Amino acid sequence: MSDHPVEAFEPPYYVAVFTTVRTENQSDYRETNARMEELVRDIPGYLGMDHAQNPGGLGITVGYFRDAEALAQWRSNAEHRAAQARGRADWYRSYTLHIAKVERSHGFTRTD
Amino acid sequence: MSDHPVEAFEPPYYVAVFTTVRTENQSDYRETNARMEELVRDIPGYLGMDHAQNPGGLGITVGYFRDAEALAQWRSNAEHRAAQARGRADWYRSYTLHIAKVERSHGFTRTD
Repeated sequence: MSDHPVEAFEPPYYVAVFTTVRTENQSDYRETNARMEELVRDIPGYLGMDHAQNPGGLGITVGYFRDAEALAQWRSNAEHRAAQARGRADWYRSYTLHIAKVERSHGFTRTD
Repeated sequence: MSDHPVEAFEPPYYVAVFTTVRTENQSDYRETNARMEELVRDIPGYLGMDHAQNPGGLGITVGYFRDAEALAQWRSNAEHRAAQARGRADWYRSYTLHIAKVERSHGFTRTD
């Protein structure tokens, strides 16, 4: 995750849009998040991730996956499931997850 | 757009995921953005918007729409199209837009 947005791939592909508001208790969050970023890269069909965070407020993470199988594999990963449970127990005040199939995409990059 | 994430609606609905990196030239950006937020609320089928911004870096805006017709109406809005052209001319170093149909969603809110 850098400050280059993930590119527009050829549809169809999937996005997982995860919006969060966190609690004050962020114990182990950073380490677990780093571990999740490492794990998801091993999923065949994982295409990339964008993340933005309002300081002290809303965060949005968008994961990009080639197909439903890639998403299913990530969803069923045991370490990922443990991290989700920890998130509900400790880190998140609220979150929403939207799983969606991309029908159209385009990108723009300034050339000057 | 507040620090409550938009809720999980009953699928199907659409997300428009817009990731951006901005230039140094943000002249008129704030006013235009406020005007766009005002305009989009008039689109029948507009459901809401989430936005997060890394200070000085990547921004992600997610718009939620009930159906493809709502998105098409927003896409063809003349003031919106003018703002998009201005964005490419001045405000954005790069951006990516992903239009996707939500198949599954869920939300979590802490109760304690």
